[in-house]
Amino acid sequence: MNDKNNDKSLLEEFQIAGNGLLDRRLFLKRGLQLSAISTLASSTALANDETSDAISSRQPWMNQPGKPFSLYGQPSAYEDRVVRFPTQNELVPGNGVSWTPLHLMEGTITPNGLHYERHHNGVPQIDPKQHKLLMHGLVKRDLFFSIDDLLRYPMQSKICFIECGGNSNAGWNKQPSRSEAGYFNGMASNSEWTGVPLSVLLDETGIKKQAKWIIAEGADAFAMQMSIPIEKAMDDAFLALYQNGERIRPENGYPLRLIVPGYEGVLNVKWLRRLKLSNRPIMARNETSKYTELLPSGKARQFTFFIEAKSLITSPSAHMLLSKPGYYQITGLAWSGRGKITKVEVSADAGASWAEAELQGPVLDRAFTRFRLPWHWNGNVAVLKSRATDETGYVQPERSELIKQRGRKGFFHYNAITNWQVDKDGFVSHVYDKQDNETPNTDISIDSGWD
Amino acid sequence: MNDKNNDKSLLEEFQIAGNGLLDRRLFLKRGLQLSAISTLASSTALANDETSDAISSRQPWMNQPGKPFSLYGQPSAYEDRVVRFPTQNELVPGNGVSWTPLHLMEGTITPNGLHYERHHNGVPQIDPKQHKLLMHGLVKRDLFFSIDDLLRYPMQSKICFIECGGNSNAGWNKQPSRSEAGYFNGMASNSEWTGVPLSVLLDETGIKKQAKWIIAEGADAFAMQMSIPIEKAMDDAFLALYQNGERIRPENGYPLRLIVPGYEGVLNVKWLRRLKLSNRPIMARNETSKYTELLPSGKARQFTFFIEAKSLITSPSAHMLLSKPGYYQITGLAWSGRGKITKVEVSADAGASWAEAELQGPVLDRAFTRFRLPWHWNGNVAVLKSRATDETGYVQPERSELIKQRGRKGFFHYNAITNWQVDKDGFVSHVYDKQDNETPNTDISIDSGWD
Repeated sequence: MNDKNNDKSLLEEFQIAGNGLLDRRLFLKRGLQLSAISTLASSTALANDETSDAISSRQPWMNQPGKPFSLYGQPSAYEDRVVRFPTQNELVPGNGVSWTPLHLMEGTITPNGLHYERHHNGVPQIDPKQHKLLMHGLVKRDLFFSIDDLLRYPMQSKICFIECGGNSNAGWNKQPSRSEAGYFNGMASNSEWTGVPLSVLLDETGIKKQAKWIIAEGADAFAMQMSIPIEKAMDDAFLALYQNGERIRPENGYPLRLIVPGYEGVLNVKWLRRLKLSNRPIMARNETSKYTELLPSGKARQFTFFIEAKSLITSPSAHMLLSKPGYYQITGLAWSGRGKITKVEVSADAGASWAEAELQGPVLDRAFTRFRLPWHWNGNVAVLKSRATDETGYVQPERSELIKQRGRKGFFHYNAITNWQVDKDGFVSHVYDKQDNETPNTDISIDSGWD
Repeated sequence: MNDKNNDKSLLEEFQIAGNGLLDRRLFLKRGLQLSAISTLASSTALANDETSDAISSRQPWMNQPGKPFSLYGQPSAYEDRVVRFPTQNELVPGNGVSWTPLHLMEGTITPNGLHYERHHNGVPQIDPKQHKLLMHGLVKRDLFFSIDDLLRYPMQSKICFIECGGNSNAGWNKQPSRSEAGYFNGMASNSEWTGVPLSVLLDETGIKKQAKWIIAEGADAFAMQMSIPIEKAMDDAFLALYQNGERIRPENGYPLRLIVPGYEGVLNVKWLRRLKLSNRPIMARNETSKYTELLPSGKARQFTFFIEAKSLITSPSAHMLLSKPGYYQITGLAWSGRGKITKVEVSADAGASWAEAELQGPVLDRAFTRFRLPWHWNGNVAVLKSRATDETGYVQPERSELIKQRGRKGFFHYNAITNWQVDKDGFVSHVYDKQDNETPNTDISIDSGWD
C-alpha cells in the first residue's frame, strides 16, 4: 500500500491550499486508499497466525467480571488529566476562573463537569427551597417566584455557547502564550440550556413605559449585578433551570441562571435572585472598570454585550507533538454571538492561502460549530490559522487588525486569529505573525485582569 | 389578576383539543396574562416594604464566601435523587440494566453520568494503551488499530439516541407499571457521539465480494458479539471515541464504541475490540434467543434492528402530584430509528381528541426531540397520551394494536403509546386503556427478559 507515486498524485488531486491542505470532501470518495493515511494502522499485513493470536489473546478485563453499576458515573481513570484548569486569586480562593480543556475534547457539547467557571466569591451552595426570584422596579406588580413555581412555567431549550469577555486575554500580551489551547481560550463552553423565557415572566409582572434596563443580581456573596437592555430581555433571554438535561450545577448557577444568548458570559448571571426594571443601567463595577476597554481615540467601549465571531484550532494545537509527517485532521471550534457561523477557513502557510473547512452539522445559532479539514504535513515548519465568518458577514480579524482597532489598553474581548506553529520536530506552539512581533519595551499598559 | 371570566374566555380562545389542551402558540401572544398561570407566583401583590425586605434579606450563602473551584464538578447535593436506577441480576451483579431518570430531566441531551447502561458482565476498566481493534475476515488485508491510531483518523459527530431493545418491556405486562416514567422507559438516552466513520476504516482494509455482515465483538468478560449488515456499516456506522465532548465513559464503552444510528442499543457494541467481515450473521445468543419475538403466526422476528417511532410524556408522569387545578406544561420526548420526528400529538381525554405539540428545534435525525404543550387541568380525572409520527409516515401504535401485531410472547421492542392518568387528587399513575384491560388468567407467557 505504500505506493508513493500514487500517494503523491492523490495529494496533488486533493490539495486545495498551500502546504498540504486537502479538500474537505476527501473522505466522501469511496475506496480511497491514501498511504499517508493507511500507514496509521499499526500493522498493514498481519500474518494469519498473528490474527489468530489477536483473536484469542484476552486482556485481563476479559477474564474477570467488570465493575458493578454506578448511580452517577465518572470518566475513566485513564482520562484524569481531562479536567478544568483553575486560575485563582491566591488571596481570595473563590475569585478567579477555570478553563475548559478544549484541546482534549471533540464534538461541540461541553459536559457539565468541564464547563468553564468564573466566580467572584466562590460557589454558593443554595438550597432551592429557600431560593426565590424577585422581580420589581418599573413593573406593574412586584412578584416573587419560587423554584417550584418556575418549574411549572413553559420552557424552551437552546444549545448555545457562553464565553467570558476575558477569554483569550493572553492574546494581548507581547509574548505568545505558553499554555495549551484550552487553558488560553477555554473560558468558552457550549451546553443545552433549558428554562423559562424571561418574556413570559415580564408578561406576568407587566412593564412600565419608563423601563429600559433590567438589573440582574446573583445570590452569591459578591451579589453580582449586571444591566441588560429590556429589548434583549424580551427577545431571547431565558431563566435556565437545566443544563444538558440535568439541573444546573452549583458552579454554573444552581438553581437558576439568566441566559442571554450571544452576550458575553458575565451577563449570564448565575444564582439569579433579583431582576429589577430600571430606566438606566446600574453602572456596576463589572460594566465600568471591568469588561470595558479604552480605545486609541480616548473613548471607552462599554456595554459591548455581543461576542464577536471567533474560531480556534483545537488540534493540532500548543504542546501537541506530531509524531511523523503524514495525514492529520485539523479540527477546531467556531462561534459567534451574532448568529450562525457560515464559514471557517484554514491556512497551513501562515495566511498565504486558505481552504474552507467542513462544518459539522447541525450549525446552530450562537453555538459552538465544529470544523474539520484533512491535512498532509510534509515535515516542514507550518503555521496553522483558522478564520471564522458569521451570518452578519463579520470576519474574524488578524491580531494586528484587532490591535489597530482597539489599541493596547484593553484586557477583554480578544477574538483575533490564533496561530499554531508546527516545528520540524512536530512540536506545536503559539506564535504571532512576524510582522506582528513586538519589542518588549513597547510602551503599553495592560489591565491586570481579574481581581 | 384573578379575573375568572377573562380567564375562561382566554381558555376557550386557546383550547384546541378536549379537556384543556391549549394551542402551542399560546406564549407567542405578548402581554397575555392568564390567571391560571399567574397564580403560580407566590405573591401577586407585594407591599413596598415586603419588596424592600426581600432585597435586603440575604440568605446564608450571601454572607460568606462560597466553595472553591472544582476540577470536575458534580450536581448539587440537593439533586442527589437524580441518578440512574439499576436493576441487576442478584446472582451476577454486573448483569442488568440501569435506567435514565427521564422524568427528572428536561431538554434532550443526556449527561454522561445519567446515560442508561446495559451490561452482561460488568464494566471492564480498559487501559487504552493496551486496547486494539482488529479488523479481519473477508477483508483484503487484516489490520490492527490502536486508540492512538484511531484518534488521528477523520472524525464526525452526531447527536443521536440509543435505546435498548428491551426498553419499556413492562408495557407487555398484564398490569400497568408502578414505576416512574424513567424507570420504565429510561433505557433510552441521547448524546453527541464523535468518532471515525467505519466506512473510512473499511476502505483501509478493503472488502471481499462475499462479505455481507460484520460481526462486532466487545472486550468485556461476556465478549459480546453482534451481526450488522455491511450496508449499514458502510452507510452511517462509526466508531465513537467521545461522548458529549469528553472521552466515552467506561460504562458506555471506553475507549471505543460502535455507533449504528437508529439501531437498537445492543448493536452499538461497547468496548469494541474486533470487527470480522463474514458472509453470514454469527447467530449469537443476543440475536437468536434474545432481542427477537415469536409472532402469532408462529414465525419469529429477528434482525429487526431499527427502533420504531416512540414518544413518552415525561411530565406530568407517574408518581407526580399536581398540587391544584390550573396551568401545566405537558412535556416529553419522541424519537425514531428511521429518521426525524415530524409530529407529536397529545391527548388529555384518553385519545378522544388530539392536539399537536410544539417540537423544540433543532429536530435532528434519530435523536431525542422534546415536545411541549400548554394544558389547563380542570381538576377532574384526565388521561394523557402522546403519539409520535416520523418522517417515514409511521405512527406510534396504541398498545392494543401492538399486541394485535406482535402477540404476547415477546419481551422486546415495546413502543406503544403510554397513558398517564391524573386522578382528582392530582396523583399521576400509569393505566391501560379500558378496552385493553386484561384478566389475570389470560393464557400468556412472557419472556423473563434479562438474564
